[in-house]
Amino acid sequence: MNEHSKKTEEFTVRPVGYVKSELTEIPFGPDVETDPETRKKQVKDNREQVKNTMSELVIKPEFEELLDGIDAFSHIVVLFWPHKLEEDRRKLTKVHPMGRKDLPQQGIFATRSPARPNPVLISTIQLLERSGNILRVKGLEALDQTPIIDIKPVTRHYEGIENPTVPDWIKQISEE
Amino acid sequence: MNEHSKKTEEFTVRPVGYVKSELTEIPFGPDVETDPETRKKQVKDNREQVKNTMSELVIKPEFEELLDGIDAFSHIVVLFWPHKLEEDRRKLTKVHPMGRKDLPQQGIFATRSPARPNPVLISTIQLLERSGNILRVKGLEALDQTPIIDIKPVTRHYEGIENPTVPDWIKQISEE
Repeated sequence: MNEHSKKTEEFTVRPVGYVKSELTEIPFGPDVETDPETRKKQVKDNREQVKNTMSELVIKPEFEELLDGIDAFSHIVVLFWPHKLEEDRRKLTKVHPMGRKDLPQQGIFATRSPARPNPVLISTIQLLERSGNILRVKGLEALDQTPIIDIKPVTRHYEGIENPTVPDWIKQISEE
Repeated sequence: MNEHSKKTEEFTVRPVGYVKSELTEIPFGPDVETDPETRKKQVKDNREQVKNTMSELVIKPEFEELLDGIDAFSHIVVLFWPHKLEEDRRKLTKVHPMGRKDLPQQGIFATRSPARPNPVLISTIQLLERSGNILRVKGLEALDQTPIIDIKPVTRHYEGIENPTVPDWIKQISEE
């Protein structure tokens, strides 16, 4: 393997912070045999719970300055690593969506399963407040202690939110 | 450093494929001194070019099966690693958005700059066609040979697209 291919065959990510959340347990495992009706209810209950969950993104002090300007946005995208995912589940090729055996199996890339070759999960959520190195957010489906990989602002309508609040410099760029 | 903290302090990602694109050069570097008017035009021209760019996501054969079911979606999110970014640019704390000195500096997490501690970039784009291990897409701002980290389906309105096409299993889940 030459220098070039080595360089592009593997990358290292290091957490820039951690999630503080009241969510502490994986709500349901895909491998647990559950009848479809029970699973349906679990999925729905979990969705409701996540929607109202308040979390904190605790950014490491050495990255605090990188947050400057973020409180001018109403929404952010959080990239995180599901640290409770067992390593061998990165090798899965197909899953029943949400572990529901009544739905046909799908390739991993056609699902949002956390079990994927590179389990970098993304979530677009509401930013409530920045206080120093801490962001208070609402609706993040990430367990307590989840490592945060990156934070990005939601800058445009097509990234998902009807009318996101953006800083003046974004408005200026959009209008030019 | 104990076993637990070692485990959560570093993660390895390996490309699942590569981008094939006519885009081969970084359109403009942030460090190049350019007057604001010229830079504005560069940004605009680049945005136009990207919008119409057709690319192929060439997935490694060992991951081909993970794509099964993806062609039932109209849009996907691509996660990729900007391999031409110099390693020391991961240490930046603030930048002028798009290298424009007329706009105030912002913390990296308040921008979409590719120069960030963990340069995992995301792009929501239109999926035109799947053919075996190749996805044809439109509008991806990633250079030729860019390593692909992950592919996810766009499943819901709030992830950005007005009316994304989704497979029947997603419709069924949404209606339950």
